[in-house]
Amino acid sequence: MTSPSSARIHARQLSLMLVTDSLACGERSLPEVVAAAVAGGVTCVQLREKLASGYVFLDRARALRQLLKPLGIPLIINDRIDIALAAQADGVHLGQTDMPVADARRILPPTMLLGWSVETPAQVEAANDLDVDYLGVSPVFATPTKTDTAPPWGLEGLSRARRLTVKPLVAIGGISTDNIGALRSAGADGCAVVRAICSASDPQIAATKLRRAFDQGVI
Amino acid sequence: MTSPSSARIHARQLSLMLVTDSLACGERSLPEVVAAAVAGGVTCVQLREKLASGYVFLDRARALRQLLKPLGIPLIINDRIDIALAAQADGVHLGQTDMPVADARRILPPTMLLGWSVETPAQVEAANDLDVDYLGVSPVFATPTKTDTAPPWGLEGLSRARRLTVKPLVAIGGISTDNIGALRSAGADGCAVVRAICSASDPQIAATKLRRAFDQGVI
Repeated sequence: MTSPSSARIHARQLSLMLVTDSLACGERSLPEVVAAAVAGGVTCVQLREKLASGYVFLDRARALRQLLKPLGIPLIINDRIDIALAAQADGVHLGQTDMPVADARRILPPTMLLGWSVETPAQVEAANDLDVDYLGVSPVFATPTKTDTAPPWGLEGLSRARRLTVKPLVAIGGISTDNIGALRSAGADGCAVVRAICSASDPQIAATKLRRAFDQGVI
Repeated sequence: MTSPSSARIHARQLSLMLVTDSLACGERSLPEVVAAAVAGGVTCVQLREKLASGYVFLDRARALRQLLKPLGIPLIINDRIDIALAAQADGVHLGQTDMPVADARRILPPTMLLGWSVETPAQVEAANDLDVDYLGVSPVFATPTKTDTAPPWGLEGLSRARRLTVKPLVAIGGISTDNIGALRSAGADGCAVVRAICSASDPQIAATKLRRAFDQGVI
């Protein structure tokens, strides 16, 4: 089941989102890992920097923009709208503790996409009235990457979210090649991964396997 | 010695800047402390929230804007340009590890003021080519509020900075009623304080004393 593509991003571009974690990249540079991930089949990249200064965050955003723009891969900035604006990224991703969507929309150019994390069915329903381009269903499974999360949605929860909205759904949290196919079958338009790619010994191969498993769904 | 007032803020409005610290306010609400400080003579307010989420940061910025706008007291947001834009604050304050000035200017409305922290004489000279409205001379004295700072400027360092620029200078770091007069005499257009007001048992009285001592200079 595929949701209608929005004007700002096509649902297919959400198939496999890499959410970055600079620490998880180890000794490899972030652009190096991102380039490998994109070569493997990642369809969009969300730059998340919870610890970096504004200076470093913008620097990394610019480096990824330079890498991704020629490839046609959307770059989304987590939380910091100012960094997204300065780096001319394609969009921002906001969570429930970030700036509210209505406020964000007022300071974003109309062409910039906005992703929004939802942790409960009530938040999915509320998001139907918001000008957001996809919903991050978070966390779909338990994950060690974020420890401050709501209870996991699970496959049934994702199916329920699917019935509550026509907006594209991107599942995130604890996703691996073993469960990514089931997420598509349960209604996800895309999946977002952090460690499954950033911590992989070969990010390109990891991305290739994830993408193939997602595209196939449950066989 | 007073620098020429810029188009975006008059040097006199920089005389006594309160830099907020929500934790230092203890059981008192931030707007309560700010209102008392302004009643005592604070001439502008910089909202600094190093730990708050975007949601809370914006909420606090809006509350201060509502309080300060009718009083004609400028509200400046530390670091987060997106919060400043969303809250329609009067400006932002950036440090050397935040987004560079040139990048910030590109995403700021031309009417918004921009303050810039300088930690060395070389940074003061470099700032002469930047479109910034005042320089935060940081730290002028040793301070426990920020532990990641450069060596203190001291009075002689401040005098040296004064000779290097005509931009308004706002001294910050370790300022009290005992030393604030000397800072004016050494060339500061204003002083910024955190604990001297936020941690005071009576923020209004503290602000009154600081303002009086600054306005008098060394007698």
